[in-house]
Amino acid sequence: MFITLEGMDGSGKSTQARLLAEFLRAQFGAAKIVLTREPGGAAISEQIRGVIHSLRNDNMAPLTEFLLYNAARAQIVAEVIRPALAQDKIVLCDRYADSTLAYQGYGRQLDLAMVRDVTRYATGGLKPDLTFYFELDIEAGLARRNQGHARGEELNRMDVQTREFYARVYNGYKLLRQAEPARWIVIDGSRAVESVQADLRAQLSPRLRVNLSS
Amino acid sequence: MFITLEGMDGSGKSTQARLLAEFLRAQFGAAKIVLTREPGGAAISEQIRGVIHSLRNDNMAPLTEFLLYNAARAQIVAEVIRPALAQDKIVLCDRYADSTLAYQGYGRQLDLAMVRDVTRYATGGLKPDLTFYFELDIEAGLARRNQGHARGEELNRMDVQTREFYARVYNGYKLLRQAEPARWIVIDGSRAVESVQADLRAQLSPRLRVNLSS
Repeated sequence: MFITLEGMDGSGKSTQARLLAEFLRAQFGAAKIVLTREPGGAAISEQIRGVIHSLRNDNMAPLTEFLLYNAARAQIVAEVIRPALAQDKIVLCDRYADSTLAYQGYGRQLDLAMVRDVTRYATGGLKPDLTFYFELDIEAGLARRNQGHARGEELNRMDVQTREFYARVYNGYKLLRQAEPARWIVIDGSRAVESVQADLRAQLSPRLRVNLSS
Repeated sequence: MFITLEGMDGSGKSTQARLLAEFLRAQFGAAKIVLTREPGGAAISEQIRGVIHSLRNDNMAPLTEFLLYNAARAQIVAEVIRPALAQDKIVLCDRYADSTLAYQGYGRQLDLAMVRDVTRYATGGLKPDLTFYFELDIEAGLARRNQGHARGEELNRMDVQTREFYARVYNGYKLLRQAEPARWIVIDGSRAVESVQADLRAQLSPRLRVNLSS
């Protein structure tokens, strides 16, 4: 089973992915669960992540950014995700192709047909079985990001875009969910970490045909 | 005018590109000539070159390699080549899209329609006006590479592929030339550096409508 977690920065995705992976490892055994992330998740993809995120690369062309995300993705699909799925593992991926549709397609306003073509090439057509969307409005997401920054979290190039950019991404996610409602599950990300995690487990439980909420 | 130089490694492309640029700068003034290379030619593209070439990345998926070349290309097209052409400069590029067709399309045996699609996206359809192919048979190219290595030149990941891979690349270049004979000019790269350069200038001269062979 291939599960992705999507949302704006600050929506709690990465924390929730980590907590869910810990929980599922306790339930099914560590060997059964793979937690990974985009961009990154494999040595080559992490090198590409470094290029994408570097603040000194502030003149990166939108097309370059888009192709780098898909290069990192092609590697993690080949090296991590497909082998794990072939062994019947549960794969949790913190961001995947939908992020590229939302950020590079809608956010950067690249041609959507091109974005879909190249993303399909990079993934060989592999789509998630289930996608959790952590809903958080733009202001709340930016506020959380600023709090993180004040605590010393490092900003990357994708954290310093305009408010208009994030508004297009937010709207893009909405359109993506509307286009494929059966795949997406919306989780209210504005609540405390524990409430969000409980909700996530409760939503996932019937789909894994086990009771995870106990 | 957009001129690319193509061929197998060891065919002398890079040396010839440098000599031709020097010559054209003396003829037309330094400001009129841009010499660049792929992958690389811009700070972001050189970072991507580092990822592509690193020997530790020996498990890079062919799709990842392919997308990285196009990411580096998208950046150099946006940052270097298009602005130079808009200012009516002569751009010399040491490798360009044909290299990806030859190495990743024919060499790695990726789907050619996909390779063409993504390469067209990355370049926005920008094609060279003229392409010089430095003809050198595979054995001679490998021998030159080994000589270079013995002299202390660093090997990169693209230098340590199988002989079968290089044979497919060589054959791929042949098919590319046959498909667009008007764009390609074949230069015998087996001769001494000075002879090759004289030939190159003589071939280019009528196309620039000046006498460069004097």
